[in-house]
Amino acid sequence: MNRKFNFSAGPCTLPLEVLEEAQAEFVDYHGAGMSLLEMSHRGAHFQAVADEAAALALEIFQAPDEFCVLFIQGGATLQFAMLPLNFLHTGQAGAYINSGAWAAGAIADGGAHGNVYTAWDGSADNYTRMPADAEIQLRDNTRYLHITTNETIGGIRFPDWPAVEVPLIGDVSSEYMARPVAWEKFDLVYGGAQKNLGPAGMAVVFARKSALQTGNRDIARYLRYDIHEAGGSMFNTPPVFAIYMFGKVLKWMKKHGGLAAMESRAASKSGALYAAIDGSGDYYRCPVERACRSHMNVVFRLPDEAREKKFLAEAEAAGLMNLKGHRSVGGCRASIYNAMPADGVAALVDFMADFQAANG
Amino acid sequence: MNRKFNFSAGPCTLPLEVLEEAQAEFVDYHGAGMSLLEMSHRGAHFQAVADEAAALALEIFQAPDEFCVLFIQGGATLQFAMLPLNFLHTGQAGAYINSGAWAAGAIADGGAHGNVYTAWDGSADNYTRMPADAEIQLRDNTRYLHITTNETIGGIRFPDWPAVEVPLIGDVSSEYMARPVAWEKFDLVYGGAQKNLGPAGMAVVFARKSALQTGNRDIARYLRYDIHEAGGSMFNTPPVFAIYMFGKVLKWMKKHGGLAAMESRAASKSGALYAAIDGSGDYYRCPVERACRSHMNVVFRLPDEAREKKFLAEAEAAGLMNLKGHRSVGGCRASIYNAMPADGVAALVDFMADFQAANG
Repeated sequence: MNRKFNFSAGPCTLPLEVLEEAQAEFVDYHGAGMSLLEMSHRGAHFQAVADEAAALALEIFQAPDEFCVLFIQGGATLQFAMLPLNFLHTGQAGAYINSGAWAAGAIADGGAHGNVYTAWDGSADNYTRMPADAEIQLRDNTRYLHITTNETIGGIRFPDWPAVEVPLIGDVSSEYMARPVAWEKFDLVYGGAQKNLGPAGMAVVFARKSALQTGNRDIARYLRYDIHEAGGSMFNTPPVFAIYMFGKVLKWMKKHGGLAAMESRAASKSGALYAAIDGSGDYYRCPVERACRSHMNVVFRLPDEAREKKFLAEAEAAGLMNLKGHRSVGGCRASIYNAMPADGVAALVDFMADFQAANG
Repeated sequence: MNRKFNFSAGPCTLPLEVLEEAQAEFVDYHGAGMSLLEMSHRGAHFQAVADEAAALALEIFQAPDEFCVLFIQGGATLQFAMLPLNFLHTGQAGAYINSGAWAAGAIADGGAHGNVYTAWDGSADNYTRMPADAEIQLRDNTRYLHITTNETIGGIRFPDWPAVEVPLIGDVSSEYMARPVAWEKFDLVYGGAQKNLGPAGMAVVFARKSALQTGNRDIARYLRYDIHEAGGSMFNTPPVFAIYMFGKVLKWMKKHGGLAAMESRAASKSGALYAAIDGSGDYYRCPVERACRSHMNVVFRLPDEAREKKFLAEAEAAGLMNLKGHRSVGGCRASIYNAMPADGVAALVDFMADFQAANG
């Protein structure tokens, strides 16, 4: 197999050893005479898989006992609806930081099911930075402040968690388990699994248990966090394969040093790319304010669109795949999630230098 | 591999050749140097997979041009919420047939998001039959009649589709693509994939396109059918693996004769089991009214619970797995979905005779 380096923003590269392990046991799971995919989710085999995945999730992400972890289908996008449905009671409002495309989606969907408002708007800066604490304008009766901790498209992240008087809710989709979170500030942390945590097919939600106990109850069961918690994420048929693969990715993370190692590798890999960009004499340019540069999604431009197109084509020919920026902003983007090996980043850095030398 | 016969109600047995094909291409998809799970859902590889799955679904289920097919996460259970959210405008009501546990769930969840009522209640008969048309009591301003065409737990099905003045909405989860539906009567047909259609992880929804155009728009995007339709089931990251496996199961169905063959095999397999039950001199008993007996979930009792327990244990030892009835009703249940080979049913029939002879 001629394995490529895959810089896709998600779904994205997974650890090769995880894929190989899953392949080996795909048809006959642990000698049971059937695939895990064919087993009842109420049976002992899958219950063990789900229990181990949940326990590892809480352990690796260093979540305190006050938190539970839930597996819910529908991606981060269904969470956009569930947040106000569960948490906003009459008279309460949800505050949102508009930091880019994903935050805007959370605001739009949230507004359909609750009283939400924008507490800071990054559109004037073209989403190239996150707000300072003093810029965040909260109103009375605000139940939570929603932040998108890393914007996949803009390539920005919060360097520090906002210090505000209300609980935070964080969409961490594109930097999930790539840095620690300050749990004491959060009521809920969520994100799609399909970047750092496994294949597409579910959101992973860490929730403060006490917050779930005071949620709204007059909504359908699938939309209620407390129902998912009471059912151990199995009140209805769970996304078996997504949970199984998530567990395997977590075992891989633990084996390779856990959260601290993932954070440090991300700093090192993104640092190498930003150094290559900054050292290129303005040939490559990153539009993001330095302090807010993402460690997961490194966005950059070339001198003109013609060279960007050539860059992307030649990169693919060299086995460096999916470096195209999001269609809404153009340019280039290297998504370097936990499973991207340092070798992949080194190969990209080398390619960038060679391309500049040939097309300067 | 010592492959078992798996009578699980879902997730459940899948065609062995589908599992083996998926295993073979799991790590390196068509020589692309990466797994399909790692690819962007906007890329050519996955787009082809999704397009083929959708086209095959419409073809095999014989859906007319007025219908589209959608892949939505959250199982049938999230659909319980989406139906009233999308279809019930002010002043309109949704009618429901209460035919068992799944229908009751649809009613409870539906009631949280719209004006719904029970048009016939099967609880007085302990859910052993479906209603005749004359028993269904519809009120004015009813937008739809919701039916659960096959109840997985009770083992009953509608022998014929109700003839009523309003559009039908059908939860066909446990007999999906095992019999044709009368499309002209339906606005929407839905169900979880994890019985006849593939592994767990999504609902498959066939919707009349014109009905989606008049749906409510003041709800979050993930909950809107029209948004899923406009995005080709990819307005957000889709459940890649579930769609991929669904497509493979459909190819298997097509190769093995399509819908007509599935229906005829289901009649034959369930017929063999009901004949074994009816011919046992009341040793095995099926509580369901004859005309309403499910072709997918064959429920039966033994003379007493002690022999049921022994039956289940000895069946497992003989490689006949997961014959236990749902915990809410007890007894035995053989779920014989499309992928259950006739050999599996024949082995069960033999085992039942042997068990009776030894424990009569």
